[in-house]
Amino acid sequence: MGSITNAGDNSKVDVLVVGAGPAGMMAVTWFARCGIKAKIVDKRGTKIYNGQADGLQCRTLEILDSFEFADRAWKEGNHMLEICLWNPGRDGVIRRSDRIPDTIPGISRFQQLVLHQGRIERFFLDSLKDHSDIRVERGVLPQSLTFDESKAEDDDAYPIKVTLKHLTEDEINPPQSNATKCGAAPSDGLYRSNMAPDDTEELLNKTANDKVGTQETIQAKYMIGCDGAHSWTRKQLGYTLDGEQTDYIWGVLDIIPITDFPDIRQRCAIHSANSGSVMVIPRENKLVRLYIQMTTTEKGGEPVDRTNITPAMILECANRTLAPYKLSYEYCDWWTAYQIGQRVGSNFSKNERIFLAGDAVHTHSPKAGQGMNVSMQDTYNLCWKISAVLNGTADRRILKTYQSERRRIAQDLIAFDHKFSRLFSGRPAKDMMDEAGISMEEFKNAFEKGNLFASGVAVDYGASLIVAKDGSSIDQGDGTDVGVINSKRAVSKQQLATNVKLGMRMPSFKVLNQSDARPWHFQEILRSTGQWRLVVFAGDVSDKGQMSRVQKLGETLAANDSFISRFTPASKPINSVIEILTIHSAPRASTELHDFHDIFHPYSKRDGWDYWKIYADDISYHEGHGKAYENYGVDKKKGCAVILRPDQYVSWVGELEDVQDMDRFFSGFMKM
Amino acid sequence: MGSITNAGDNSKVDVLVVGAGPAGMMAVTWFARCGIKAKIVDKRGTKIYNGQADGLQCRTLEILDSFEFADRAWKEGNHMLEICLWNPGRDGVIRRSDRIPDTIPGISRFQQLVLHQGRIERFFLDSLKDHSDIRVERGVLPQSLTFDESKAEDDDAYPIKVTLKHLTEDEINPPQSNATKCGAAPSDGLYRSNMAPDDTEELLNKTANDKVGTQETIQAKYMIGCDGAHSWTRKQLGYTLDGEQTDYIWGVLDIIPITDFPDIRQRCAIHSANSGSVMVIPRENKLVRLYIQMTTTEKGGEPVDRTNITPAMILECANRTLAPYKLSYEYCDWWTAYQIGQRVGSNFSKNERIFLAGDAVHTHSPKAGQGMNVSMQDTYNLCWKISAVLNGTADRRILKTYQSERRRIAQDLIAFDHKFSRLFSGRPAKDMMDEAGISMEEFKNAFEKGNLFASGVAVDYGASLIVAKDGSSIDQGDGTDVGVINSKRAVSKQQLATNVKLGMRMPSFKVLNQSDARPWHFQEILRSTGQWRLVVFAGDVSDKGQMSRVQKLGETLAANDSFISRFTPASKPINSVIEILTIHSAPRASTELHDFHDIFHPYSKRDGWDYWKIYADDISYHEGHGKAYENYGVDKKKGCAVILRPDQYVSWVGELEDVQDMDRFFSGFMKM
Repeated sequence: MGSITNAGDNSKVDVLVVGAGPAGMMAVTWFARCGIKAKIVDKRGTKIYNGQADGLQCRTLEILDSFEFADRAWKEGNHMLEICLWNPGRDGVIRRSDRIPDTIPGISRFQQLVLHQGRIERFFLDSLKDHSDIRVERGVLPQSLTFDESKAEDDDAYPIKVTLKHLTEDEINPPQSNATKCGAAPSDGLYRSNMAPDDTEELLNKTANDKVGTQETIQAKYMIGCDGAHSWTRKQLGYTLDGEQTDYIWGVLDIIPITDFPDIRQRCAIHSANSGSVMVIPRENKLVRLYIQMTTTEKGGEPVDRTNITPAMILECANRTLAPYKLSYEYCDWWTAYQIGQRVGSNFSKNERIFLAGDAVHTHSPKAGQGMNVSMQDTYNLCWKISAVLNGTADRRILKTYQSERRRIAQDLIAFDHKFSRLFSGRPAKDMMDEAGISMEEFKNAFEKGNLFASGVAVDYGASLIVAKDGSSIDQGDGTDVGVINSKRAVSKQQLATNVKLGMRMPSFKVLNQSDARPWHFQEILRSTGQWRLVVFAGDVSDKGQMSRVQKLGETLAANDSFISRFTPASKPINSVIEILTIHSAPRASTELHDFHDIFHPYSKRDGWDYWKIYADDISYHEGHGKAYENYGVDKKKGCAVILRPDQYVSWVGELEDVQDMDRFFSGFMKM
Repeated sequence: MGSITNAGDNSKVDVLVVGAGPAGMMAVTWFARCGIKAKIVDKRGTKIYNGQADGLQCRTLEILDSFEFADRAWKEGNHMLEICLWNPGRDGVIRRSDRIPDTIPGISRFQQLVLHQGRIERFFLDSLKDHSDIRVERGVLPQSLTFDESKAEDDDAYPIKVTLKHLTEDEINPPQSNATKCGAAPSDGLYRSNMAPDDTEELLNKTANDKVGTQETIQAKYMIGCDGAHSWTRKQLGYTLDGEQTDYIWGVLDIIPITDFPDIRQRCAIHSANSGSVMVIPRENKLVRLYIQMTTTEKGGEPVDRTNITPAMILECANRTLAPYKLSYEYCDWWTAYQIGQRVGSNFSKNERIFLAGDAVHTHSPKAGQGMNVSMQDTYNLCWKISAVLNGTADRRILKTYQSERRRIAQDLIAFDHKFSRLFSGRPAKDMMDEAGISMEEFKNAFEKGNLFASGVAVDYGASLIVAKDGSSIDQGDGTDVGVINSKRAVSKQQLATNVKLGMRMPSFKVLNQSDARPWHFQEILRSTGQWRLVVFAGDVSDKGQMSRVQKLGETLAANDSFISRFTPASKPINSVIEILTIHSAPRASTELHDFHDIFHPYSKRDGWDYWKIYADDISYHEGHGKAYENYGVDKKKGCAVILRPDQYVSWVGELEDVQDMDRFFSGFMKM
């Protein structure tokens, strides 16, 4: 065992990703789309099949849609529309006290849904296969890591060396089946930390792995540790997770419920008078997940030995909370018991060469449905940046914004989860005078506010060299300095697009394709391709004066010395680095594609003109009027210009004439 | 060559389907969902990959959605929203004279789209694999057919015997590639009849067919010939296609166009003054299909030899019509030239044992985008009926309705196509006095009317034992008698649901799931499972009197002697033959699932109560108010009851108390 294979050229990769959970899969999905040579390994023998994280928030669905597979999640998942709050009345009996929408209406074109993590991994795997040669290598354990810090700033260097061991079948944990009848669940349904991916894996696919039992050494330019709460990568770097380690003990049941409780297919937060709380999360395939509070004190008190917990005990707890309603089941898909704290990583990267993402840098309660989402959003933020650096279009300095942007989010998440967990686990106050109890009004407010936070659309990245926003990058992020010196700083005019908020993701409204009248949500046009976008709100092009402003912009952008020409390699199509998308506000039928300068619908020898770049803010035949200008807060007559990052976050807003400022913005980090 | 294999039990099948184009695939898709043992063979070596039919009409998309894969077509296809009509002005130069919506707003939740037939076949193949063991056997040619007419009415008999030959590679036509640069197209781009599937096939997949070169004999209870315009099955039966054999000659180009013509991404009908007509059909993957008129006289005149036609000639014709605009291309995906007439089959079945469907019984011009649609709708109509007979729930008499319903549709189609083709091919009238010319106003009217017809949603099946409608089944169908004697005839009360039209497909509006508030288009609930549906419009159940009517209906339906109990095998779930779906009009929050009798949300030992049977006509959080009662034309207070066929066509409408009439309806054809 353990011979070193000579992997030849395959020993060098642009990026090595350790861990093929949602964060790792998102990472290589970006690399697949950006043409980066990436390798992804996972110690598990198979992808996971049940249990685990399951909530998909609005922003996550928007991101999956930018890779063109949100529709699969939308179709298979259980949509969550309504939250019901149940509290004890004066008689101590629980009753429904509120119904509130689960997703705040209007914040996204998607609503929160629930779908098992294994399905999300399946969509990623299929998408990888469609777009690249990257495949997940399973049963692979990293053994050692060396990093040559002196070469960190050398673009051409491979400063990272990792030895990988291809496990034999015996070395991979045996499979477990947690599908079981009530009371007959296997005792190994209990895990060290909640949702640990290791614990529900299926048999290793035994075919076609001739590397089994061998070791190989990989040289990489970059590395990302997406290897979970017990991250091996983090340990090699000597970084810590800071925060509290404990919380109440919770049981989790994934069952097909048999119950007279009327809201079992709703998301419910149930506070009983004295028997703890239950959260109900309806899922796909008739399943319902129940989070059931097993202890009523946070720390200390009677120590509960989690190893003694059984599904029958969890069910009994649930029935105490749900009384007078009754709950039982014939089919249990998965169960566990967990105790978890809120912790966040001290560092998200080593020299912007080795990065940590997902559970490796933040742990928190699963009840807010954030785990999978924040993890995927970490690498969604990171990997277009790494790709741009590797592809030679951006300077390495943009990589610092990963920690600045995402560590701040992790800190916010942990603070939110800490507060929410305690409100949810506490005993309801009997009356105004009961200070030890939790105010149900306060809980409801926290729940509603939490929903906006949890949706992911409220994320607001701070000022940096890629977000031309006022103020200090240090204050607006996690403390990292990612700013631009003032003399080189591009200046945004937020007032020109009041609802296209700098630092936030571009909202989506329907616009019509100029050439074929098809309505598109504008986000659907903003695919994750690695391209930056210059969105030209061309205004009322049926007005001659306005049209001449637009044509002048076109001529400037098309010139040989424009930032678009300068930052696009001569061998590549003119829109390959920065894509220009136009939305005008004139009636669609009042203008024609060929009225616009060619730069707005570039010509190619094989495919003719591009019919998918110019859109109108007009009424559609079947799907109403998107009212994009009104909703984006842009003046219909004179329009404006917007720069979007490859991840759809807003970098800059200005006038159609502010080409010098656009140039200043891109020149701040782009390379010729 | 030609040894007879002993196939054992595999020699007996419930249904043999010959031909794996859209009609054949739709047939076996039904069989897969209904648990029928079916075999499907095709003489081609592979599925098709380019060219061929491509228009998907609204009703077809509704049907694909009932099998849960319309979303794939919706995502991949090119949506057609607007039609532009171009006609010569007084100066003889073409200009845009009209813009009209391609799909009439409001007639369906889908709009027409264009997607290559090969992709549709792919969706069918994937769906077959997900739901059954049925696989298409390719390179299989039927050799002989014998039919024992004396056993036609014996439910247990296998009166059909077919000998099949598994072709060797040499016997299957060699592959052709039609992807070519302008002017360099292979001369075999010319086909005997338009869109013949044989002509664009790829190489036979050489792996894993140990039957190659052998023969086998199949015994079948039923057989369906979906084997195209030159149907072998039809020839064995000695049936003819009646109608005209010729038409103008048309050229077809599938190209990525390079043109200054502004509407190249719209569906366009272009009449030039003297140079014929062009139809533009924008497609997926930047392609555009152009139908180009090559002759200006219908018959006689200078005979054009189609074998001399080249893509360059077709392009030249197109440029004559499109002048002063210019058209060229670098990439041509496929091309052909065709001449076709309108013909319809004399008989659609032999003793309701051997059926013909699709091109085997109707041929017509492809320009109306009907070919694939009407063909799939043929077997969509037929195969739930065959399944019901085979599964023992329905009497063989229902099979006669196939010819009555579908031959009538074919006749209507042929009449429409005949008129439309001539209007499209004719020279535009110069003025009111120009009687030899075509009135462009008349053409526009025909086009708009044609759009409703072509959508498929206007289909209105006549009175029969499965449509309880007034009037004569002979007059309302193709002349076949499929009526019920008056004393046994169920009587509908159309006025109770004025927009749920007897004989037409159930329209779709959004309703909310009572248990989780999710909005669904009601058609999404009407999956193609083979189940009949009793739709209970329960009215305002917050009114006690109304609720007691509903509960009384529930008690009657749940009784042991009810038609539901009688027609459902004791071993099967109570909703397996007739599913009850409820839509009430009370505010959703005013009632609970458990307020309703169990029969409306049946209990199962493993899965508890069924949360997916009761819906509310109420406002949703994110998708507005479906206003289902208003749109269906049903009284909000008192509701009504509706019976739907497994293919979503409306059979009967009555009061909640008309249980005897429901019973009479089902007793007319169901078997215990």
